[in-house]
Amino acid sequence: MKFQLDPRLEADTFPVRDLVLCRVLLMNDGRFPWLILVPRRPDMREIIDLGEADAAILLAEIRAASQVTRALFQPHKLNVAALGNAVPQLHVHIIARQTTDEAWPRPIWGVGTSLPYDPKTASKQVQELAQAFDAHFGKAMHLA
Amino acid sequence: MKFQLDPRLEADTFPVRDLVLCRVLLMNDGRFPWLILVPRRPDMREIIDLGEADAAILLAEIRAASQVTRALFQPHKLNVAALGNAVPQLHVHIIARQTTDEAWPRPIWGVGTSLPYDPKTASKQVQELAQAFDAHFGKAMHLA
Repeated sequence: MKFQLDPRLEADTFPVRDLVLCRVLLMNDGRFPWLILVPRRPDMREIIDLGEADAAILLAEIRAASQVTRALFQPHKLNVAALGNAVPQLHVHIIARQTTDEAWPRPIWGVGTSLPYDPKTASKQVQELAQAFDAHFGKAMHLA
Repeated sequence: MKFQLDPRLEADTFPVRDLVLCRVLLMNDGRFPWLILVPRRPDMREIIDLGEADAAILLAEIRAASQVTRALFQPHKLNVAALGNAVPQLHVHIIARQTTDEAWPRPIWGVGTSLPYDPKTASKQVQELAQAFDAHFGKAMHLA
């Protein structure tokens, strides 16, 4: 069986990069720098559904995404979470939180209304993120 | 510098077990089976503050806690999250969610009012969890 991105995740995000395990997505909500990592394996709901080797790669990619996000956005705090109550396909949120953001100190889910990027800003943001992942891993590690 | 559990985490939880890296806590809220893992390292705020070896142990202990929680409570979905907006000391929530719980499908933080366990139920719950961790790891792995 083949991996297929959940259509709700697809509708709400921009693709940034495919890493060794995960597809990196940028959530289309300009209020928060908000990445989503989706392991490209079919039928995964929980972190414990992944085999041990895949779980180790997921951890490395969570750490990479956290470092990229910290370097680009200098957040006060990172929020890292695998919830999946609405979209059960396994995905991990990495959100750069500021004490001045709309939801602080609450978690961001369900707070207010998302603010879609204008296309130019989205494309610039995606490009900066993709370059930061390239720099983090070196060009060799992600799939072309 | 020595690890010291944040006093707010201490006040809101019961200690379950010290694993190799993390202290396992049971949140004092009978509405949800809710564990918290706290790496026993001083001055940690983010998963990326941990060294690589400690991060690998954290992952193993998140997976262990997820398996223990899944076996004991048969949740519809696990929620796994490192937020830390209110309590910055690095800690990871592992919450067993049911579609019938009070907050479903929302995340649980900030929903309603926590329902403290009565002492007998708390002590039974802690004992069951501790035994399940022992069975998962074998008695040798956790610190006495």
